[in-house]
Amino acid sequence: MEKGKLFVISGPSGVGKGTICNRILEETGMKFSVSMTTRKPRENEEHGVNYFFVTDEEFQKVADEGGFLEYAEVYGNRYGTPIAQTLERLEVGIDVMLDIDIQGAQNVKKIYPDGVFIFVLPPSLEELKNRIVTRGSETEETLKIRLGAAIAELQHAREYDYCIINGDLEEAVAAVKSIWCAEHLRFSEEIFNKIDI
Amino acid sequence: MEKGKLFVISGPSGVGKGTICNRILEETGMKFSVSMTTRKPRENEEHGVNYFFVTDEEFQKVADEGGFLEYAEVYGNRYGTPIAQTLERLEVGIDVMLDIDIQGAQNVKKIYPDGVFIFVLPPSLEELKNRIVTRGSETEETLKIRLGAAIAELQHAREYDYCIINGDLEEAVAAVKSIWCAEHLRFSEEIFNKIDI
Repeated sequence: MEKGKLFVISGPSGVGKGTICNRILEETGMKFSVSMTTRKPRENEEHGVNYFFVTDEEFQKVADEGGFLEYAEVYGNRYGTPIAQTLERLEVGIDVMLDIDIQGAQNVKKIYPDGVFIFVLPPSLEELKNRIVTRGSETEETLKIRLGAAIAELQHAREYDYCIINGDLEEAVAAVKSIWCAEHLRFSEEIFNKIDI
Repeated sequence: MEKGKLFVISGPSGVGKGTICNRILEETGMKFSVSMTTRKPRENEEHGVNYFFVTDEEFQKVADEGGFLEYAEVYGNRYGTPIAQTLERLEVGIDVMLDIDIQGAQNVKKIYPDGVFIFVLPPSLEELKNRIVTRGSETEETLKIRLGAAIAELQHAREYDYCIINGDLEEAVAAVKSIWCAEHLRFSEEIFNKIDI
């Protein structure tokens, strides 16, 4: 059986990665990895579906055993991508999508260099600002911080295999789908099983 | 300006590369490289459009100067891909397609490793045989030779970046187009000129 492929998407907050990822999952059958988190479940969130909800001790144990592809702390809660679950999915031919930050992607690259790393750029800083403002909940001060962080993050685009500009959503989705198709066309010995020679 | 990309397509004779290439040229604006040949022009063939028609001496001079990306002799006529013309096109942002044999592709890879190398496979040996027979002009003996050569050639698929199976033409064309799109999404410093930061 052909193994699945791991697609890692990063980009500054507000760039619209989430929307792109959801469309790609719908249209390709790719699956998000289910993260482990110490955050309390919200209403409608299901253990093993949205997240694996664990205690701080349980999370730390997995971290200590090197069981995460990457993990991070966000607003006091910890989030991690379990290696075992991801590899199991890839092994049975399921493509897995990780929507993670740059540091997480750097860690994944060390552990799983065969991953396909995609960076999403905004068409302009002005547009990124508009998107962040539209989402609300930013003060003038935090907006400046986020934009500054975004500019710094863009420099890391060169560590990724592919870069797409999310100006038009349909174009961005089509771009990621092209990458997904092309990556499945890379030479692998598996190809000889697909033809009748 | 963003440089063009060089796409090199190989595959056993009869696999349908020509049809795929023509469709790709129509749909992407990619251009065939214009080969130099010692063959006499056929009716309707134009110098500089279909081929650069040259004498044996002129051809040999270019070959001696290392002016070909690759060259080969077919039925007593010589054919070569001029480096200068190909690089000029790439330099001004035109994608170039080379439909060449495995040995030619190996030479191109040495001189221009940034090329994108695509191998086209038949869905089955039976189907390849049918396609060769349909084209006519094969005796039982030459058919056997061509099929034997095809089987040997398939082993070289692993030297290519991508492999596509030409079972259904539309799928094969879509596959090459995905590769073309994805390769243009590879990170290059050029991306920072495309966004307004």
